[in-house]
Amino acid sequence: MFQINQHYTELQGSYLFSRIASKVRAYEAEHPEEEIIRLGIGDVTLPLAPAVIKALHAAVDEMAVKETFRGYAPDLGYEFLRAAIRDHDYKSRGADIEIDEIFISDGAKSDTGNIGDIFSASCRAAICDPVYPVYLDSNVMDGRAGSYLPETGRYSNILYMPCTEENGFIPQIPSEKADMIYLCFPNNPTGMTISKEELQKWVDYALENGSVILYDAAYEAYIRDENAVHTIYECEGADRCAIEFRSFSKNAGFTGTRLGFTVVPKKLKCGDISLNALWARRHGTKFNGTAYIIQRAGEAVYSEEGQRQTKEQVDYYMKNASLILEGLKEAGYTAYGGVNAPYIWLKTPDEMTSWEFFDSLLWKAHVVGTPGSGFGPCGEHFFRLTAFGSLEDTQRAMERIRNFSC
Amino acid sequence: MFQINQHYTELQGSYLFSRIASKVRAYEAEHPEEEIIRLGIGDVTLPLAPAVIKALHAAVDEMAVKETFRGYAPDLGYEFLRAAIRDHDYKSRGADIEIDEIFISDGAKSDTGNIGDIFSASCRAAICDPVYPVYLDSNVMDGRAGSYLPETGRYSNILYMPCTEENGFIPQIPSEKADMIYLCFPNNPTGMTISKEELQKWVDYALENGSVILYDAAYEAYIRDENAVHTIYECEGADRCAIEFRSFSKNAGFTGTRLGFTVVPKKLKCGDISLNALWARRHGTKFNGTAYIIQRAGEAVYSEEGQRQTKEQVDYYMKNASLILEGLKEAGYTAYGGVNAPYIWLKTPDEMTSWEFFDSLLWKAHVVGTPGSGFGPCGEHFFRLTAFGSLEDTQRAMERIRNFSC
Repeated sequence: MFQINQHYTELQGSYLFSRIASKVRAYEAEHPEEEIIRLGIGDVTLPLAPAVIKALHAAVDEMAVKETFRGYAPDLGYEFLRAAIRDHDYKSRGADIEIDEIFISDGAKSDTGNIGDIFSASCRAAICDPVYPVYLDSNVMDGRAGSYLPETGRYSNILYMPCTEENGFIPQIPSEKADMIYLCFPNNPTGMTISKEELQKWVDYALENGSVILYDAAYEAYIRDENAVHTIYECEGADRCAIEFRSFSKNAGFTGTRLGFTVVPKKLKCGDISLNALWARRHGTKFNGTAYIIQRAGEAVYSEEGQRQTKEQVDYYMKNASLILEGLKEAGYTAYGGVNAPYIWLKTPDEMTSWEFFDSLLWKAHVVGTPGSGFGPCGEHFFRLTAFGSLEDTQRAMERIRNFSC
Repeated sequence: MFQINQHYTELQGSYLFSRIASKVRAYEAEHPEEEIIRLGIGDVTLPLAPAVIKALHAAVDEMAVKETFRGYAPDLGYEFLRAAIRDHDYKSRGADIEIDEIFISDGAKSDTGNIGDIFSASCRAAICDPVYPVYLDSNVMDGRAGSYLPETGRYSNILYMPCTEENGFIPQIPSEKADMIYLCFPNNPTGMTISKEELQKWVDYALENGSVILYDAAYEAYIRDENAVHTIYECEGADRCAIEFRSFSKNAGFTGTRLGFTVVPKKLKCGDISLNALWARRHGTKFNGTAYIIQRAGEAVYSEEGQRQTKEQVDYYMKNASLILEGLKEAGYTAYGGVNAPYIWLKTPDEMTSWEFFDSLLWKAHVVGTPGSGFGPCGEHFFRLTAFGSLEDTQRAMERIRNFSC
């Protein structure tokens, strides 16, 4: 009899968003007349930029004609896109990344989920709390997490790195040895980011201890602080200890268009074995490239027009972020994030639990957000609002929040 | 120190296509004036059908406008596409597959490569020889293959199922117990297919022995025989023992557009655990959907126009297949396939090795094909030609092959 991967049985239900949806439905059933504003979603709402649309149409036309039709893409992605990435995202920041270190994919979720494939199941993974669930769940699937302990809401073999108000939501370097360290800056869900000096400490730790850093920079386009680090390869030695994940989802609205990339430097090795070669083999065996038309759309993001237009979109969302952050502060809340990220992480008043605050906000202000406890135990007493709604909805939601009392 | 997945070190080099390329380059360097015809590739050459192009443009336009813009797709894929698949590919053949058993993906290579995630590393995998390399390599990566034995060209823990002239290239049911059985019909590389009666025997074996069949039907559109089976779910009980993989790459020319799907029936269980739920969790954790515009392109394949146009493309390739098969027979070769598949599997004359025949064909007829031994030890003394070239090239290549003597 075939057997399943038993590690899957250790996965906990992913009830966060379905629980939110069912609570919203219950409210709507009782109040069909009331309009709910959603500031809970992590999905973009602005349409694709005109330069991207133009590139998509042009590429579709190429696919219609025998002479310009494209079949299987090169394993690592088309050079036109990888060269644009190298120049705009790395050379421009002094990071010496070559195009054969850049792997085009269908998005950062696939890559952050699949990267575990190339590491031993015996590696100890260090993960922030609160955290984007993919890092944790994919390690559970790979057998690195151990058993789930209901009393703590944690897995026995994961090295959790609390991100709390006390440490400014920047995790402390673990005192126990960590083999694989997941970091995400600007952070989802806390909206906080890290300076180059702080990140350099992690790189130094990794180099000293033989750890690999899995660095998710999906929200890089939202950085406003001059001191914040855009790519981990700005740090000295990171090309010997870090893999970086990037996405087009939030900087160019590609959540439904699917494009991302992963950087695996050739200098990153385990003994004699190059992780770049391992990932190339994984990429070539279990993936068959991203659609040509989507890669052309990605190239258009790097054009002069594309850069201007997508920056306007990011600015639009960041105006929402400011409105939320300032509105919350005016209303007497303690709130974080929202300066270098589209996420605002507010502290619930009066020690309300995240879900108590969720219910109160839904029933009294008709605004939906995301309970922080859904991202891990250290998210308890926090609540995430996102800047991806429309300006009008965001303004109206903040008006309601200002006038509401839990 | 972090450690890599040691199973990767058991992988053998994937030198087949790079060795072909370097031999072709060497020939071209010596004979720059000679034009080479390539019948080795498994990639399509006809442009996307007009109905698909039209749907792509329309979907791109939707992405340009706030009101019709689409962000994250539903985890399993859009219902419009899953409903079209259910009706056209399953209901029409009497197979009772529901839309929540259909998972839209970016292609069958990803799915056949990733499916191992949900099975235990202790499962015994049965794999045909010769074989599409992904089944084997992904099992090596997952740790199911054991050690590579250079003297046999095989892995210690894989149950190989020879597909030879003697058994008509239909593998025999294993005498040892197999947990996971990979079958691909119509077959790449042999071009042979299977009848419903024959496939039913595999389903019966799987049900009796608690095996799961991983059935790759990527070339289903090429079937011409009335007796050949289009989906494994035509067989009684297959919904309790089989997962089926499908692709838009060859039936609609999507090799560079990327779309496929996998069927995991809800009745397929390991004890109480539904494999549908496991794959849904894997899909939701390590994948984030296929681009909206690509799913609309897939829907267009199922429209009346799309069906007519893509069938014309398949017919075009199958005319090439006939030309190759008949031409080879006229020239005195023994050849298989080419009737229900775009692949022709010819026996090398005079017991030449696959690579000797490759060299001879390249140097004397200036035609490139694929050595059968590259697909496994039982592919030795065979050679694959593909029908995906242009009609003109195929005619000219066959003219050359008819006039050539090894």
